[in-house]
Amino acid sequence: MNEPNCVFCKIAAGQIPSHRIFEDASCLAFLDIGPLAGGHALLIPKSHWASLDQMPADAAAAMLRNLPAICRAIRAATGCEGFNILQNNGTCASQVVMHVHFHIIPRNPGDEFHFNWPSKAYTRGEAEELAAKISRELR
Amino acid sequence: MNEPNCVFCKIAAGQIPSHRIFEDASCLAFLDIGPLAGGHALLIPKSHWASLDQMPADAAAAMLRNLPAICRAIRAATGCEGFNILQNNGTCASQVVMHVHFHIIPRNPGDEFHFNWPSKAYTRGEAEELAAKISRELR
Repeated sequence: MNEPNCVFCKIAAGQIPSHRIFEDASCLAFLDIGPLAGGHALLIPKSHWASLDQMPADAAAAMLRNLPAICRAIRAATGCEGFNILQNNGTCASQVVMHVHFHIIPRNPGDEFHFNWPSKAYTRGEAEELAAKISRELR
Repeated sequence: MNEPNCVFCKIAAGQIPSHRIFEDASCLAFLDIGPLAGGHALLIPKSHWASLDQMPADAAAAMLRNLPAICRAIRAATGCEGFNILQNNGTCASQVVMHVHFHIIPRNPGDEFHFNWPSKAYTRGEAEELAAKISRELR
């Protein structure tokens, strides 16, 4: 399942060094080398999927069951007040490495990481229609 | 496990209406009422946990195994080119409703949702020390 030119496949295989914090049969967590804050980590599946929507349910469950414990450990080790989970899919969503990775970003009041929130409103009937359309895709 | 004053507990219980797109025994997904883009959805556990680090591994797995299929359905229904998963823990991390929720945010080139990326570098030995500290917390 590995991609020969994928940097995260190489990290998972130990061909590129990383600062590992957790590992099991399905996944690996390691420190981001360009952290937004000390302790900023990445959780990746050992197998290669370019984006989250490509992952089978069992693979997502096997990896993401570890997410709360990793977050607890990062909180305990860094003393951060909060944290964000961010996972990007596609270049337009700021994905740079095309191998699924979940960012765990420690946060504190007044820090430098920000996102905007340009929220909109649905027109009458629009949300109902869209929810029905998405639900049909899930059946 | 429900909190009497939690808006997401009330949505999970059907006491507040929502545009539901998916539901199973452990979790619920519905459209965000102030979407960043059409199809912006929230995935929540039906039980109440204020933040992700409070969730047991089994509860996280039961909920998050559904995340890829929900993302596929949102992509198919909206035609979005990419998407972000964002999950906020703590006021300093922009959490507003204190019940775990994963945002699924459809993205397209030139849209209005942005985040900055003020990345830093570790000093010599700092990453090794921090990774060891986090690893110890995970044991």
